[in-house]
Amino acid sequence: MPVGTQGSVKTVGSEDLEGLGFQQILANTYHLSLRPGSKTVESLGGLHRFMSWNRAILTDSGGYQVMSLSDTRTIDDSGVKFKSHLDGSVQFLSPERSIEIQAELGVDISMALDECPPYPCSREEAAEAMRRTHLWAGRNLGAARDGQAVFGIVQGGVHEDLRTESAQTISSLPFDGIAIGGVSVGEPSDMQYPVVAHTAKLLPADKPRYLMGVGHPRDILHAVSCGIDMFDCVLPTRMARHHALYTLEGRVNALGRRWHDFGGPFDEASVFPQTERYSAAYIRHLFKAGEPLAARLATLHNLAFYARLMEEIRTAISDGTWPELIERYKRA
Amino acid sequence: MPVGTQGSVKTVGSEDLEGLGFQQILANTYHLSLRPGSKTVESLGGLHRFMSWNRAILTDSGGYQVMSLSDTRTIDDSGVKFKSHLDGSVQFLSPERSIEIQAELGVDISMALDECPPYPCSREEAAEAMRRTHLWAGRNLGAARDGQAVFGIVQGGVHEDLRTESAQTISSLPFDGIAIGGVSVGEPSDMQYPVVAHTAKLLPADKPRYLMGVGHPRDILHAVSCGIDMFDCVLPTRMARHHALYTLEGRVNALGRRWHDFGGPFDEASVFPQTERYSAAYIRHLFKAGEPLAARLATLHNLAFYARLMEEIRTAISDGTWPELIERYKRA
Repeated sequence: MPVGTQGSVKTVGSEDLEGLGFQQILANTYHLSLRPGSKTVESLGGLHRFMSWNRAILTDSGGYQVMSLSDTRTIDDSGVKFKSHLDGSVQFLSPERSIEIQAELGVDISMALDECPPYPCSREEAAEAMRRTHLWAGRNLGAARDGQAVFGIVQGGVHEDLRTESAQTISSLPFDGIAIGGVSVGEPSDMQYPVVAHTAKLLPADKPRYLMGVGHPRDILHAVSCGIDMFDCVLPTRMARHHALYTLEGRVNALGRRWHDFGGPFDEASVFPQTERYSAAYIRHLFKAGEPLAARLATLHNLAFYARLMEEIRTAISDGTWPELIERYKRA
Repeated sequence: MPVGTQGSVKTVGSEDLEGLGFQQILANTYHLSLRPGSKTVESLGGLHRFMSWNRAILTDSGGYQVMSLSDTRTIDDSGVKFKSHLDGSVQFLSPERSIEIQAELGVDISMALDECPPYPCSREEAAEAMRRTHLWAGRNLGAARDGQAVFGIVQGGVHEDLRTESAQTISSLPFDGIAIGGVSVGEPSDMQYPVVAHTAKLLPADKPRYLMGVGHPRDILHAVSCGIDMFDCVLPTRMARHHALYTLEGRVNALGRRWHDFGGPFDEASVFPQTERYSAAYIRHLFKAGEPLAARLATLHNLAFYARLMEEIRTAISDGTWPELIERYKRA
């Protein structure tokens, strides 16, 4: 899922995302509830109509942003009180309110409100965040409107026993899908892989499994090999705005001097219909000149790279060519 | 002609300009010669290939930017010495050098280097700039490569007798087209109309007539009624980035509170394929949220508005429905 935090995947329109073949995007409950407001979006026919996107939308619960963006916040078992980063107004988010906002947005998949501790945190903090996540889990489900799909979230930090407990607890509830949260929150990637490998195998086989906020192509390949189905990540779009383009040879810096008079693509093996008419030299020039088209072309390139990665993952699974796929992306 | 100063019409790609139906764009000799350099563009196959635009390109001569952007400059009859606004390096622009740069860029229409005085300026300054423009006119032509089309430029400020003299002088030379320069340089619009009306009728009937840097829809309609054929203007693209959208009812401010929950377009009579899926409320939200897609959608809207204006002008001329057209755009 490309990330459209405020109801827009930065620099591209819904027609671009359709052309790239994406079936689902992620949007952000926290941001949209503050601006333009979920009631406003609802009055305009819901988020699909608002952003003219007829395919699927998943929203996160807002919990992560409350923790990371809000100046002051107090959390207890009732919910989180926080100040808006936009106007300082006092807001309150609870499982019930988060699910209600997501219902007003009219999205296809709502995420349960959880408590996602930062990294590093003590075992006690991880356990406490997990306890509250579990306490809230059922309240999220209870608040759902008829037909509103809700995914639960497994927490537990980097602690295997906590992850086991959380996977069992969340899996026991009638969620429509299960997410692994609390990963990709600043921990080294060699700590991420064991958590994903351990947790994924504990999740029910008959529900979609979603690894939140991950990640690099290699992280996605690892996670899929552990049984993960769904991903969201800002990397392709954010890196694009920082002139980093994904190729099978790794990310390249579009500002590099070597592209100054290079009329070909950054990587012959990563040429996509949306951007193939433009050379590396031209895209470098656009970045150097501060042209807004630079970020757009880089974003289209990176999203196409990720769309192809996911397509090739699906093909490799059905064709039994997983080892070849790992080989193909080993430098990406 | 949409304006692509640095080889990019801000926020849109060549595929967008093709889709909008534009046949020609303007690019900037001054900017492209400093970055990435005309030799670099030439080595990459010319500006058409560099920006992947196979339709026509006109470049201005660089004279206007040298006067307006460079800190320090000295002008005499040999040319202009100036410091680059990018790195402070000393550069020299003469008629010969300007035509050479434009040849290296490989554009379809090169503009003669002229001296364009600012407004206000004294009659003496206007006369002196005209004298130098005339002195340089033949040197521009003499520097042209075989087959390089060069347009001459009429100067003379707001002085009817100087404009007459300049129109006669420039028209007597074998330019491929004639431009009226020194208009839209800060003068009130009620001073622009008489200059255009007076000068246009003195130009040869068998060559294209180009009014540089104009303008508002009403200014274009007036100029066409005076016999002008070609225009370039930054207004549709620049205004878009300042959330001003063109409609038949005039420019509207996309940030206006009235659009907050308005699910329709800004103007039912100005709905274009490139942006019709997006409501005024969504575009307002994108601007409020600082999303880069905002400027892009507004730019696509404004360029579509101007493309339609020019299309309807051509139709009205051939169909003899000019009065109806003036009526239609009277509030635009």
